[in-house]
Amino acid sequence: MDFAPSARSAELQDAVRRFLDEAVHPAEPLYHHQVARLREDGTPYRTPAVIEHLKTQARERGLWNLFLPDPEHGAGLSVLDYAPIAELSGRSYALAPEAMNCAAPDTGNMEVLAMFGTPEQKERWLAPLLEGRIRSCFSMTEPDVASSDATNIAARITRDGDEYVVNGRKWWSSGALRPECEIAIVMGVSEPDAERHARHSMILVPLDTPGVTVHRSTSVFGYDDGAHGGHGEVSFHDVRVPASNLVGTPGSGFAIAQARLGPGRIHHCMRALGMGERALELMTSRAIERTAFGQPLANQGVVREWVAESRLALEQARLLVLKTAWLIDRVGAKGAASEIAAIKVAAPRAALYVLDKAIQTHGAAGVSEDTPLAQMWAMVRTLRLADGPDEVHLRSMARVELNLARARVRQS
Amino acid sequence: MDFAPSARSAELQDAVRRFLDEAVHPAEPLYHHQVARLREDGTPYRTPAVIEHLKTQARERGLWNLFLPDPEHGAGLSVLDYAPIAELSGRSYALAPEAMNCAAPDTGNMEVLAMFGTPEQKERWLAPLLEGRIRSCFSMTEPDVASSDATNIAARITRDGDEYVVNGRKWWSSGALRPECEIAIVMGVSEPDAERHARHSMILVPLDTPGVTVHRSTSVFGYDDGAHGGHGEVSFHDVRVPASNLVGTPGSGFAIAQARLGPGRIHHCMRALGMGERALELMTSRAIERTAFGQPLANQGVVREWVAESRLALEQARLLVLKTAWLIDRVGAKGAASEIAAIKVAAPRAALYVLDKAIQTHGAAGVSEDTPLAQMWAMVRTLRLADGPDEVHLRSMARVELNLARARVRQS
Amino acid sequence: MDFAPSARSAELQDAVRRFLDEAVHPAEPLYHHQVARLREDGTPYRTPAVIEHLKTQARERGLWNLFLPDPEHGAGLSVLDYAPIAELSGRSYALAPEAMNCAAPDTGNMEVLAMFGTPEQKERWLAPLLEGRIRSCFSMTEPDVASSDATNIAARITRDGDEYVVNGRKWWSSGALRPECEIAIVMGVSEPDAERHARHSMILVPLDTPGVTVHRSTSVFGYDDGAHGGHGEVSFHDVRVPASNLVGTPGSGFAIAQARLGPGRIHHCMRALGMGERALELMTSRAIERTAFGQPLANQGVVREWVAESRLALEQARLLVLKTAWLIDRVGAKGAASEIAAIKVAAPRAALYVLDKAIQTHGAAGVSEDTPLAQMWAMVRTLRLADGPDEVHLRSMARVELNLARARVRQS
Amino acid sequence: MDFAPSARSAELQDAVRRFLDEAVHPAEPLYHHQVARLREDGTPYRTPAVIEHLKTQARERGLWNLFLPDPEHGAGLSVLDYAPIAELSGRSYALAPEAMNCAAPDTGNMEVLAMFGTPEQKERWLAPLLEGRIRSCFSMTEPDVASSDATNIAARITRDGDEYVVNGRKWWSSGALRPECEIAIVMGVSEPDAERHARHSMILVPLDTPGVTVHRSTSVFGYDDGAHGGHGEVSFHDVRVPASNLVGTPGSGFAIAQARLGPGRIHHCMRALGMGERALELMTSRAIERTAFGQPLANQGVVREWVAESRLALEQARLLVLKTAWLIDRVGAKGAASEIAAIKVAAPRAALYVLDKAIQTHGAAGVSEDTPLAQMWAMVRTLRLADGPDEVHLRSMARVELNLARARVRQS
Repeated sequence: MDFAPSARSAELQDAVRRFLDEAVHPAEPLYHHQVARLREDGTPYRTPAVIEHLKTQARERGLWNLFLPDPEHGAGLSVLDYAPIAELSGRSYALAPEAMNCAAPDTGNMEVLAMFGTPEQKERWLAPLLEGRIRSCFSMTEPDVASSDATNIAARITRDGDEYVVNGRKWWSSGALRPECEIAIVMGVSEPDAERHARHSMILVPLDTPGVTVHRSTSVFGYDDGAHGGHGEVSFHDVRVPASNLVGTPGSGFAIAQARLGPGRIHHCMRALGMGERALELMTSRAIERTAFGQPLANQGVVREWVAESRLALEQARLLVLKTAWLIDRVGAKGAASEIAAIKVAAPRAALYVLDKAIQTHGAAGVSEDTPLAQMWAMVRTLRLADGPDEVHLRSMARVELNLARARVRQS
Repeated sequence: MDFAPSARSAELQDAVRRFLDEAVHPAEPLYHHQVARLREDGTPYRTPAVIEHLKTQARERGLWNLFLPDPEHGAGLSVLDYAPIAELSGRSYALAPEAMNCAAPDTGNMEVLAMFGTPEQKERWLAPLLEGRIRSCFSMTEPDVASSDATNIAARITRDGDEYVVNGRKWWSSGALRPECEIAIVMGVSEPDAERHARHSMILVPLDTPGVTVHRSTSVFGYDDGAHGGHGEVSFHDVRVPASNLVGTPGSGFAIAQARLGPGRIHHCMRALGMGERALELMTSRAIERTAFGQPLANQGVVREWVAESRLALEQARLLVLKTAWLIDRVGAKGAASEIAAIKVAAPRAALYVLDKAIQTHGAAGVSEDTPLAQMWAMVRTLRLADGPDEVHLRSMARVELNLARARVRQS
Repeated sequence: MDFAPSARSAELQDAVRRFLDEAVHPAEPLYHHQVARLREDGTPYRTPAVIEHLKTQARERGLWNLFLPDPEHGAGLSVLDYAPIAELSGRSYALAPEAMNCAAPDTGNMEVLAMFGTPEQKERWLAPLLEGRIRSCFSMTEPDVASSDATNIAARITRDGDEYVVNGRKWWSSGALRPECEIAIVMGVSEPDAERHARHSMILVPLDTPGVTVHRSTSVFGYDDGAHGGHGEVSFHDVRVPASNLVGTPGSGFAIAQARLGPGRIHHCMRALGMGERALELMTSRAIERTAFGQPLANQGVVREWVAESRLALEQARLLVLKTAWLIDRVGAKGAASEIAAIKVAAPRAALYVLDKAIQTHGAAGVSEDTPLAQMWAMVRTLRLADGPDEVHLRSMARVELNLARARVRQS
Repeated sequence: MDFAPSARSAELQDAVRRFLDEAVHPAEPLYHHQVARLREDGTPYRTPAVIEHLKTQARERGLWNLFLPDPEHGAGLSVLDYAPIAELSGRSYALAPEAMNCAAPDTGNMEVLAMFGTPEQKERWLAPLLEGRIRSCFSMTEPDVASSDATNIAARITRDGDEYVVNGRKWWSSGALRPECEIAIVMGVSEPDAERHARHSMILVPLDTPGVTVHRSTSVFGYDDGAHGGHGEVSFHDVRVPASNLVGTPGSGFAIAQARLGPGRIHHCMRALGMGERALELMTSRAIERTAFGQPLANQGVVREWVAESRLALEQARLLVLKTAWLIDRVGAKGAASEIAAIKVAAPRAALYVLDKAIQTHGAAGVSEDTPLAQMWAMVRTLRLADGPDEVHLRSMARVELNLARARVRQS
């Protein structure tokens, strides 16, 4: 278990730190100003102009597509090497990931296309995504079924001659409302008679195809996430796409989802820890500067305990994520399934602890827009549900552990 | 300790239940529709029309001003008798309290005026508030100081002849942005040389007085609370009001705040428990109706444990609030100070537990606007800071407990 | 809901407080000395002499058999009236309950005999138990089955002419090793073909009957509980007793167990809270008197938070137990089943929180025999398993709650 | 950060695993039998004979003094290389560490002598300790002061000609009552006028020196730990030892304590995690084999969640301990002070979680002597106090974190 970053990753981390300090953090006020302006103008789903500016800078600094392990299309970093970069980007979660073309759900979609796409699919969709010229969404979750059990997913992808016909209703298709979003990867049942984990396929559906309707965006604890294109509820009514739009082979939807989710969860988790680190910084700064009952908050025993427990929580969660990243690099996402499940629970939990205490340290400012804490909290809280609720991941971990125990009991 | 409601309270509770079932819950979709419409129209701080309709109905049903213990101006219910009514109103937190003219901050302001107001103040401000014709805000918290230690409050109320001159900056003046909001009760230092708890006074400042500026509304976890007038950041620059606008005697600000906060915290806590009860209903309904991994969520052991723990948490917190209400009725808010501190921690904690688990049971729907859970969570989370953070209340409780211990140790 | 004690209970509470202050607490050092002496002498299961002395005093003070609601045989107090007395006795858990003839498992056994015993059974066993001349044990739990699901209990009680033949192995028959223990109430299957909850009966088995063997005493976290007769593992091998020894009717074992457990859980829970109160006293005294890092522990913010949270936990749990006692008095143990389940979880949890923090405040002394904290902790921890583990009680509560929800969903 | 064990450590781990499986675990029943026998014979502080047998075997297998990084006297393993071996030994906490001559407090004492001892001290005391022929105790904690703040330690070590005179009262001198215990390392004030952290020294005091009295052994949650020599309360009354018995230089007591505690905490923490792993094995085995409510406990969702959370807790804590070991190897105990504080909180917390759930899964057997769970729990609970309570460690961590924050705030 060697978690030390490669020399190249260490250099990139330094470069990302400089990018954050020199470009991203200074741009945050302007970003929020532009977001507010777009909302006032009735165009809340437009991308604020400053993002394009930051994208240019990131690219010039060589901080572009770092997430993609495929060396042909991306940076070719190992999962372990990219993890600390994802953490750093989480410190400015609303700006940095997108500025570096490393924001979900595009990252996962690009990975899917890099791994499973045909040459034509790559040229048509992956290339512009890698350029940051278009955006994409991922349409898996459905409002009408418990999507935590992904075998419930009910949308239909039916072959009809040279085409597939897509029918179904999806939501939480994040990014679907932004004008740049051109393509959805849709998951649905294409082989209804196969066994449960071989029924689904993924297919590329351009959002301007007839029969696709983006109905609304759902909010997250009151936040519309408009600047990132919201969270689309999208229906597909007899939507016809060429058969060549299928990703991978028919029935491979689950396998692709698993491959997509492994590194994606590392990214989510590390960004969450980056938010936790930023919250700890805000908490300690506030504790030093704010005085109540005759002394700085930093002198209060209870606040000091929060600070220590925050460090403890972040440190432990980070080590577990790094171990998982290291494991994915060695044995693949499937071999690290139990660890991936574990971090999906542990990292948001650690970050939420720190965020909650940081909010409490800030008083009413903590729940408002005057600090990034409340919005980070909402994002990380949502992570406890996105890509499967905590309980499903704990269930998976228990299954692994109990199977080992059964083998042990049989042996003895 | 007798927590049984009087016959009159029991009847009123039944009437409130009927009002909720027959009028309020059915009106919720229309309310949210109107709120969305007002936002689209650029008038987010207008009160949705359905509220006026519900106010008329509540009044006709005799469910009006029930919060006010003063029998001359209000219903004359004891705190214990009103508590379960406040809980019921929390089940439809956005509509019911206002419909019954029982919503904060007007309730607290009306109580202050009923208890400490001059006949003129009562006629000018209390009367229209009791009629529900105007609304008010309470301007205590300041952005520049740790208001958790209320002695930090720095706004100045300076006598100048027949007038007082008010200077300072306040925020979280909830309701200040609604058109109906005509009056603020402002707390500030009027006797700078007095001892720490006798320096502050409260004064009535009409919002249209020159020098009053409402700068913006702060949001709460992304919610603007526009339909209730937002949360105003308000500055007072050389604002002159007649000396007769002072509430009570000079330097009585803390005493008034304490009197105001006692019953007010009962209301907040019981409404929070009402939200918890509603969340538990939504959780159990969802658990019964939603199927994952081959069975309803209600069959999952973990979900069942959440349901049981939720009941346990709500039940214990409610009993503590009822005991506190009973104690206020017997010995006043001052005599029940430690219990009031206790419920301020316990009730939001219980409700937040239930809300978190209800959200988790609903999956992504839980964080969205499709259930009331996320917004209730945000409101109750904010309660952990409003009127003093948990930590300050626990501090107060510990002081009482340690003083008792010191007396015991001395005796022995 | 009126939790106020009757005048008689209030008087008795005062008398118990005086008894504790004047007789019991002063006798604690002697008690522990005698316990150590008996252990050194190889007779660890003898009752220390001071207990008999205290019993005499309690009886003279009229503090005898207060637990028994039956006015013919006991004090005739309601469950609610006895609850605070049980709490007080918990403050000196090793001495006071037994001194007042109010210690488990004799209390439950006496209740069973008072309620379901024949005149002969009462004369033969209840009378000397009420006198405190003999002791009894309760043999229900079995080592070979998950007794948390009581339908698993497998001992057999088989009719053979005028006799019953008892076969089985029991453990946690508390008190079985003390010389005064003459009688066991044994639960076993007598009607193997009946439906699951009508298969079991209870029967009186004198411990000197041939075929009864007390094999050993199990310890509890290193404590042998010798002074209370240990926790016997007892086998019954073709043990023959007269058919008249059956308690109640054949197959009524479950019904009797339920009747026995209701008030018994109130007693257990209130004693646990009494231990919690004693722990809080010890914690605050220590915090006032002990100095570290230049100031008394009582000045440390973290310790203060423990004190406040302890009060909060005890207060809420007590109110819930009182409500449950009140409910049992009104609707019986069956009608209060869900509340009884709830307190079985809540009261030990609250007491364990306080005990843990009290231990932590005392440093290494807290885990040793120099304070009663560690042993109280062990007793209360065991309560989380005795009479059913927490999880079974939470399960029961969830079932009730979900049934209500199903009815609600059907109605709507 | 490379946590991979060296090839030698990996081989030793395998050898320890075989030793556990082939010799130690099979000897556990005999050990407990001998312990019970010694207690019945009135010689509870004698070492059970089987231990000597296991020591011979361990030595033959080359599993001897592995803890000691000094290659001259011990195995010369790095802290990181020894850590997993300490974890394995914790699986049979009562037998394995002592069998391998790797049990506290001898390990720490041997380290002190190896690092700071004079040649004479090494010959006289270190040599027989390394041979396992004698045992030692460490006398630091005092009953009369809050030893969590070690500057409070009040015993006096006063120079008088060629001798030092030791006066004071110590407790928790673990092992002091076993016949083999010949030597104590005593900490006390030798330079009363120096600054606070330079006042204390450590000195070697043979237990048979006139003036040394071992008064009693304190118990831990009812366990006397007799087989390991109990926990001695020892007084030193005008005890004279040669000046050459001083360890290191006068006033170096704190520095030596810090050097002693760093690796010692790694050992404690890893053994605690070993206990946690054993508990998790017991929990899963029980869950598979025990049936309640018609199915194995392993099918209960709540039990499955415990299993998963246990894995999560152990895994995170282990990674943090390994990181800390790696850090000690690179920058020394002083440079890793904050991490050492962190693991002292995190590892016992993780192990206690697992132990508590394993107890709960076992029902009443879990609190008894029929499983090792209750005693392991008591040991690990005590770790939350030994070498400083959690709160002191969290305080230290917060200080480090806040100092970093202050530097950051100053810079910006």
